[in-house]
Amino acid sequence: MRSRKGPKTLTAEIISVGNELLIGHTLDTNSHWLAKQLNQHGWILERVTQLRDSLQSISSGVREAIGRKPLVLITLGGLGPTHDDMTLAGVARSLHKPLSLNDEALRLVEEHYRSLETRPRLTRYRTKMATLPKGAKALPNPVGTAPGVFLDESRTSIFCLPGVPSEMKAIFQTSIIPFLKSFNASRPAEVQFKIAGIIESALAPILDEARRAYPGLYFKSHPRGKETGPRPLILLHIYSTRPESAGDVSKAVEYIIQRVSSKITG
Amino acid sequence: MRSRKGPKTLTAEIISVGNELLIGHTLDTNSHWLAKQLNQHGWILERVTQLRDSLQSISSGVREAIGRKPLVLITLGGLGPTHDDMTLAGVARSLHKPLSLNDEALRLVEEHYRSLETRPRLTRYRTKMATLPKGAKALPNPVGTAPGVFLDESRTSIFCLPGVPSEMKAIFQTSIIPFLKSFNASRPAEVQFKIAGIIESALAPILDEARRAYPGLYFKSHPRGKETGPRPLILLHIYSTRPESAGDVSKAVEYIIQRVSSKITG
Repeated sequence: MRSRKGPKTLTAEIISVGNELLIGHTLDTNSHWLAKQLNQHGWILERVTQLRDSLQSISSGVREAIGRKPLVLITLGGLGPTHDDMTLAGVARSLHKPLSLNDEALRLVEEHYRSLETRPRLTRYRTKMATLPKGAKALPNPVGTAPGVFLDESRTSIFCLPGVPSEMKAIFQTSIIPFLKSFNASRPAEVQFKIAGIIESALAPILDEARRAYPGLYFKSHPRGKETGPRPLILLHIYSTRPESAGDVSKAVEYIIQRVSSKITG
Repeated sequence: MRSRKGPKTLTAEIISVGNELLIGHTLDTNSHWLAKQLNQHGWILERVTQLRDSLQSISSGVREAIGRKPLVLITLGGLGPTHDDMTLAGVARSLHKPLSLNDEALRLVEEHYRSLETRPRLTRYRTKMATLPKGAKALPNPVGTAPGVFLDESRTSIFCLPGVPSEMKAIFQTSIIPFLKSFNASRPAEVQFKIAGIIESALAPILDEARRAYPGLYFKSHPRGKETGPRPLILLHIYSTRPESAGDVSKAVEYIIQRVSSKITG
């Protein structure tokens, strides 16, 4: 795995695979958890894509993501033993690589079943989890069977993680966090607070002024509750993704509070 | 809005816009809710894409989605009065259409502010919510300010909804459900149940047999809890998306239970 330093923008994408997401059976808390982790480590998550368990859909989705050249692409789900677990086949196809039995992955899978059975049989359903795109590296799964997978593509580092949340988190923490940290990005500075008594269309010009005064910061307003109620409420989120503007966050809060107060009382 | 009948596959995509999703501040429950609704009305949701508040990102995302020719594309978020609400600008750019003030949308926005203020001023922040891609139709927002937007592209019907969940749901129920229903798709037949005492790699060959016996059905296993525990647990979900195989669902349940039982006891 490479490591780069300096002010480069650290971009990432997530592809989350599973029909259960697209029929509304399962809420994609995996992507949400990962989004938070990436943000906390100073990475910019550009896009999350949820795809069905379809070889065609996964391979196009991965090919498109790689074409946008993020530094990191994380896929979630579809690494298990069953017929509809086809993420690795999709990744292999998108990279024009064959699938082949990976020695280290096979060792990890075998070791796992040895903890369950006295004489484990390596059926084709089990060796499937050790069949990776050629050139891939297996990442140990401390709490489950299917190993994670790492592929170092020219510009993009691809990590494939299982969809079971505990397994996804364990592999992420063991194998991906050290990689993300090696880029030495700074944690974003941020603050959020609620403003009562002003509606969003009246706050908008104040935010425009604040944007001009602090161009390094990002301002986002989220209306909470009904605008037509007696007390309109807005959640305001101010953050910086660059270390040089982190100090501006508290100044911007002051700036906005002053202008909002005069509008509400005046 | 067109309406088609017959056995055509009813495909949909969702594009959910907002930095708050990609920094892990907000869980995208909107897409999840919509996914369930689409499924219950017999529609196939092919892809969900979460994008940042960036004109470039939204316009490419929309252009790519339209290129895949879903019958319906629903965008979520970015319709409000502030600077970072840029979904309509992104949609307009992707369709090579100019943005222009829409009379019906302006009437809806004005009407809304008249319920809040005696003499509402139509500031540029407010008229922004009535500035739509040329040729669009405004959809009334029964519980908020920003109207929904409908655009009838050659193959794809595009609906743009606000990101505030109550507003998104209200416009969906009022303006989109009747459209989805006009295609007369049948609700999918489905069942899910838990199987204890068998691990996923042992269930996999049984599911393969079931797939061959009932090719019209979809089988998906989700491991629950730890495989290494004393009682492995799998949630099995069986469903049909075609009316002609709906009757097979209960037969397939019988089929699997029989085979699993003999494996556990045998």
